[in-house]
Amino acid sequence: MDTSTPHPAHALAQARFEPGDPGWAAKVRESFQRQQVMALLGAELAEVGPGRCEIRLPYREQLTQQHGYFHAGIISTIVDSAGGYAGFSLMPAGAGVLTVEYKLNLLAPGDGDLLIAVGEVVKPGKNLVIARGDVWVRKQERLIHCAVMQQTLMTMHGREDK
Amino acid sequence: MDTSTPHPAHALAQARFEPGDPGWAAKVRESFQRQQVMALLGAELAEVGPGRCEIRLPYREQLTQQHGYFHAGIISTIVDSAGGYAGFSLMPAGAGVLTVEYKLNLLAPGDGDLLIAVGEVVKPGKNLVIARGDVWVRKQERLIHCAVMQQTLMTMHGREDK
Amino acid sequence: MDTSTPHPAHALAQARFEPGDPGWAAKVRESFQRQQVMALLGAELAEVGPGRCEIRLPYREQLTQQHGYFHAGIISTIVDSAGGYAGFSLMPAGAGVLTVEYKLNLLAPGDGDLLIAVGEVVKPGKNLVIARGDVWVRKQERLIHCAVMQQTLMTMHGREDK
Amino acid sequence: MDTSTPHPAHALAQARFEPGDPGWAAKVRESFQRQQVMALLGAELAEVGPGRCEIRLPYREQLTQQHGYFHAGIISTIVDSAGGYAGFSLMPAGAGVLTVEYKLNLLAPGDGDLLIAVGEVVKPGKNLVIARGDVWVRKQERLIHCAVMQQTLMTMHGREDK
Repeated sequence: MDTSTPHPAHALAQARFEPGDPGWAAKVRESFQRQQVMALLGAELAEVGPGRCEIRLPYREQLTQQHGYFHAGIISTIVDSAGGYAGFSLMPAGAGVLTVEYKLNLLAPGDGDLLIAVGEVVKPGKNLVIARGDVWVRKQERLIHCAVMQQTLMTMHGREDK
Repeated sequence: MDTSTPHPAHALAQARFEPGDPGWAAKVRESFQRQQVMALLGAELAEVGPGRCEIRLPYREQLTQQHGYFHAGIISTIVDSAGGYAGFSLMPAGAGVLTVEYKLNLLAPGDGDLLIAVGEVVKPGKNLVIARGDVWVRKQERLIHCAVMQQTLMTMHGREDK
Repeated sequence: MDTSTPHPAHALAQARFEPGDPGWAAKVRESFQRQQVMALLGAELAEVGPGRCEIRLPYREQLTQQHGYFHAGIISTIVDSAGGYAGFSLMPAGAGVLTVEYKLNLLAPGDGDLLIAVGEVVKPGKNLVIARGDVWVRKQERLIHCAVMQQTLMTMHGREDK
Repeated sequence: MDTSTPHPAHALAQARFEPGDPGWAAKVRESFQRQQVMALLGAELAEVGPGRCEIRLPYREQLTQQHGYFHAGIISTIVDSAGGYAGFSLMPAGAGVLTVEYKLNLLAPGDGDLLIAVGEVVKPGKNLVIARGDVWVRKQERLIHCAVMQQTLMTMHGREDK
């Protein structure tokens, strides 16, 4: 085994992302406002940075599955959007974002009063962007890690939102 | 190459599933009624058979992403449920169903007036059940294949819904 | 429920794929020959059609995991290639193929004397191609469905193999 | 927005895993030795900790796809095993480990002289264990992040290896 190889964790720590559009923050917020489903669910864009996005969603009975917990589809809706906007924040001006695919593992029931979904870019390519997501559910002030996601996004060059 | 081997398609065609509970059809419909998010979205349980389930969802502006099409999260919500109920229809009495994970590929924008999600069991195990899903969007009487899903479900023995 | 809507299965049955390159069959076989790992494993390209590819791999002890069955990674290696060549068969002349991602569910142990992996295109896009895969293991003349896959491929325009 | 909620990253940092078997380290190494495919490929178990495993694989022409890079299936073989052994390290005595499913995104070609795959447990459940994986390829002393994985494992209680 070659012990001179730097440890992979060092490589990761060097990851820094540059937005491709100076107006990235406003662009993300405007696009989020146009997703009418976010208003229907009651989701809020809590935070957005270059390659990172956090969405929060307070509990309502209307968002539940048969046991009264947040429905898996609702969890996936907000984490898909969190990953999508993490990617969109890095894309060039005039481009739109599209989810190609994602995979979601549910780690614990969505049993609590608030969902927090965080999306983070792993690899920003020119056309394809790969992101990971995590979801926590808050129950009695404790955060429970309830889902992990892995996602592929596509940059739609020259196809701006609206 | 051994030409005496029967073709795989023959093996698939022999797949037949036996429900593990004589009350499977009513059980699925009752559980669907308890998923409040289905009422919020306006989704209907169109059809259920042993190892198969179809859910339909008419278009509403409130279900859209930034381009006015069905949001990917909404597509995933109904196909996750279609797969889950396909699996639940085969589970023994007294058991509940849980989504462990799923992966969704979006093939075309959800641009149309009706979504049709079909879930089908591929492999019904004692504890884990594997399902596939397909979603079509109807536009001007034409059906467009807009998503494919692959999913792992868990049988929660002795943990009946409600 | 609108009963005039044609059933989704009819839409699927109409799927027919046209190769984008008249030399598709030779192109696939030549590319397969260049995958040296296929020779290391002992895999054979059993059949290729427009949007479809079948790869077979006889059992050898060297391909096993800790219980003496085909290793999951070996199953994934041949089904990834089967899906990749299913997609490649439809791509235009001068293009290469790249796997963007895939997801594999293992349905049963790879316990038998032959693996048969089939890849089939679901949606051939200009840049992205979506495929599904199935793997069977043959044991005492019976075929056991042992894995299902869902995959995203990319057309590398103007980047021909070698 | 409730600003009193602790940030999710704090919750993650508290994750610590306890092996369920005092003999975990020897158990992982012995199981790895029994995976004959690892010897065929030339893979080495570089490091194992509670809930973490690293596997390394030097380049050989026999491991390549049509462009002369590490084949995606080879990348998936070692990262699937890295995730599997990360999970196995936490399982109780007398249990075996099984991969239920995984999803792999390829971020960059496997172009280099050494692959390094790291698997890490995200959520150790009694029956199901969820892990994430990362793969780097070393080229001219630089590490390139070339794949990310998300995986579901099953604890096979009372079904020890061999």
